[in-house]
Amino acid sequence: MIHVHAEVEKSINDVVVVREPFEIAGFVVNAVESRMRYRGRPDLALICAKDPNMATGAGVFTKNIFAAAPVKICRDHTKRSHGRIKAVLINAGIANACTGEEGLNRAIKSAHMVAQELGVEEASILLASTGVIGPNIDLKPIEAKLPELVEGLTPKKWEMVARAIMTTDTRPKIACAEAPIDGSIIRVGGVAKGSGMIAPNMATMLSFICTDAAIDYRLLVDILNDVVRKTFNAITVDGDTSTNDTVIVLASGYHNTSPIEKSYTDRVDSFSRLLNAVCKDLARQIVEDGEGATKCVEIRVIGTSFHEDAFRIAKVIAESPLVKTALYGGDANWGRIIAAAGRAGVHFNPDRVSLYFNDVCVFLHGTPITDEKVEEKATRVFARPTFTIRLDIQSGTQEASVWTCDLTHGYIDINAHYRT
Amino acid sequence: MIHVHAEVEKSINDVVVVREPFEIAGFVVNAVESRMRYRGRPDLALICAKDPNMATGAGVFTKNIFAAAPVKICRDHTKRSHGRIKAVLINAGIANACTGEEGLNRAIKSAHMVAQELGVEEASILLASTGVIGPNIDLKPIEAKLPELVEGLTPKKWEMVARAIMTTDTRPKIACAEAPIDGSIIRVGGVAKGSGMIAPNMATMLSFICTDAAIDYRLLVDILNDVVRKTFNAITVDGDTSTNDTVIVLASGYHNTSPIEKSYTDRVDSFSRLLNAVCKDLARQIVEDGEGATKCVEIRVIGTSFHEDAFRIAKVIAESPLVKTALYGGDANWGRIIAAAGRAGVHFNPDRVSLYFNDVCVFLHGTPITDEKVEEKATRVFARPTFTIRLDIQSGTQEASVWTCDLTHGYIDINAHYRT
Repeated sequence: MIHVHAEVEKSINDVVVVREPFEIAGFVVNAVESRMRYRGRPDLALICAKDPNMATGAGVFTKNIFAAAPVKICRDHTKRSHGRIKAVLINAGIANACTGEEGLNRAIKSAHMVAQELGVEEASILLASTGVIGPNIDLKPIEAKLPELVEGLTPKKWEMVARAIMTTDTRPKIACAEAPIDGSIIRVGGVAKGSGMIAPNMATMLSFICTDAAIDYRLLVDILNDVVRKTFNAITVDGDTSTNDTVIVLASGYHNTSPIEKSYTDRVDSFSRLLNAVCKDLARQIVEDGEGATKCVEIRVIGTSFHEDAFRIAKVIAESPLVKTALYGGDANWGRIIAAAGRAGVHFNPDRVSLYFNDVCVFLHGTPITDEKVEEKATRVFARPTFTIRLDIQSGTQEASVWTCDLTHGYIDINAHYRT
Repeated sequence: MIHVHAEVEKSINDVVVVREPFEIAGFVVNAVESRMRYRGRPDLALICAKDPNMATGAGVFTKNIFAAAPVKICRDHTKRSHGRIKAVLINAGIANACTGEEGLNRAIKSAHMVAQELGVEEASILLASTGVIGPNIDLKPIEAKLPELVEGLTPKKWEMVARAIMTTDTRPKIACAEAPIDGSIIRVGGVAKGSGMIAPNMATMLSFICTDAAIDYRLLVDILNDVVRKTFNAITVDGDTSTNDTVIVLASGYHNTSPIEKSYTDRVDSFSRLLNAVCKDLARQIVEDGEGATKCVEIRVIGTSFHEDAFRIAKVIAESPLVKTALYGGDANWGRIIAAAGRAGVHFNPDRVSLYFNDVCVFLHGTPITDEKVEEKATRVFARPTFTIRLDIQSGTQEASVWTCDLTHGYIDINAHYRT
């Protein structure tokens, strides 16, 4: 099922990521239909480490000031348990955001119920919710379904988990990759949801990733922060982040003869690449499934003095409504891209800048190439469902990529009349 | 034609602004059809001070790194002439942006031609261009039409100027106001263009404002910077700024018995209010004419410790695609507004925040008001063509407003297939 590339250490791109259901040694999962809001589909999922004494978990959460109750619980529990995480309970339909004290109390109670059912500490339980902002979650369906949820835990139901966490998503998002690390084949697999950065009233980008590696909690936190910066934080559908954004990585510790530790830099690098590849692919699946999207485009800015500068320019281009509508229209409009780059607040010499659509140079050292053949070639690139816009600032060696989708009539349809 | 309010000093809102053609003592204007790009409409305009020895001019220009050639000329000439400005030449159709050395040379030549025709210094000529980015302007039609343009100068043709500078605008934008300042009735009148912040490939927001006041150059620069910050920089159609954005104010010095000088703080305040009122109205006309817009909404954030914080939150809300599509759909979606406020990067206590649609409170101290009647009232507000969204942060006395429009199918239509 999983293809392992022979020269996996060469570069990130050499990690082969497969979008198929997987199993991760040391984890069991399940999903059921709670009917809290949806009907006829699973909406309550549980990811569970078999041996809580060996498992570690780390999370990255929304920076939104209106962080939802489950996000507050996660922050508290990862700290209190020092990353000794047993399970994650996820519900779709109600976000439990902007729900005040009552919302926090209900989140605490749901974590308590899971802890009791599994016979573990409360602080080893994490929570994630996605759905409508405002209403409270209903604890009764959770209470009623918990025994069934726990009883049905198996290593095989990852696809059902991927489906249970969907809201406005049109398809489940699954990714898995593996690589040999000092004699053990380490596997990383995950699921994600999200199609608007904050879909309508439906909050959120969520992702849950598991690995059979044995890894120290603090190291996992560091690696995850770095990976999220380059993957989930480098995509944009509409620039809106949500009250519930959550990425959680759990490590079962199954391969404890070759643990990932700071002193083994080769192991750390290999594991980071593996996690990065899976997160990157899940992030890209979110853009591909972006609300109303018909195109998925990489904005790659190269040749800056600092990574942050390249990222900032790429993000402004990726979020520009004029660029995004040009992508939709198949209009190879270099002027909008250049104008967006010019307002990113990054200082550079405009006379050194060049712009490429895949390998077609349309703008060289500050002036456009006005050639009918070039225009024709550029238009052909813009007709593709996926391609790369590369802006060369030519004043350094740093670079960054942001993945974006087009702004379409579909996006307006989905978002203009969502609640009514 | 112009209504003067009896208690004009009371507040900005007491200045009555009229959207009708006007005359400003000391200025003559004209516009002709050059056929550089458009056919059957004026596209070349000239605004001219009768007495260049008394006139002063100040400008605020785009911060975009790819500033167009005419912007570079304006920056140079206002500096070199110390604000002694005789005339502004404006062309619509070609932006003269991203045109390198050649574009700059052509801009210099066009200023030279105007200076020769008027018999004044080159440094007293300002330029502004709007239109397609990339192509060079053609000097021949300018050269051919200059005599006719100068010969036809009259105080009466402001509406023609307003029409000559349009690109994707659907209507000309004109505003005028006056007020008594120490015995003289001071008048401020201006025109503007713009409908996308940078319309398609068509670059730009432009505005040209004249007054019969006598005012020192440095003081005019200071007042203009402050006014632009609160008016033209407090609107958004799509968040995209352009390579050509330009606001120029010219003062004829006609009322030189009551000059606006720093030591007369009352005069300075009165003049600032007058200029602010005209700029605010022109800025609002741009939003009202925003590409595809059906609604014009004020995002007002109050109760922050710093003005910048309020402005930042208001701008993030005003530019959020999810908020803008909700405005379009008439969906009183408080969740999207709250979520946008929460990601503005400003620290505040979410439990103190309240949100109002006009006077309907929908969110009080961190939690939504779930009441069918409130929902009904809120939906009625969202059905209006213009209303105010007021977010109260409750942690200070500062506030800021940003005017925005909705994101519609019309916007997608205009921008997805512009060049093709």
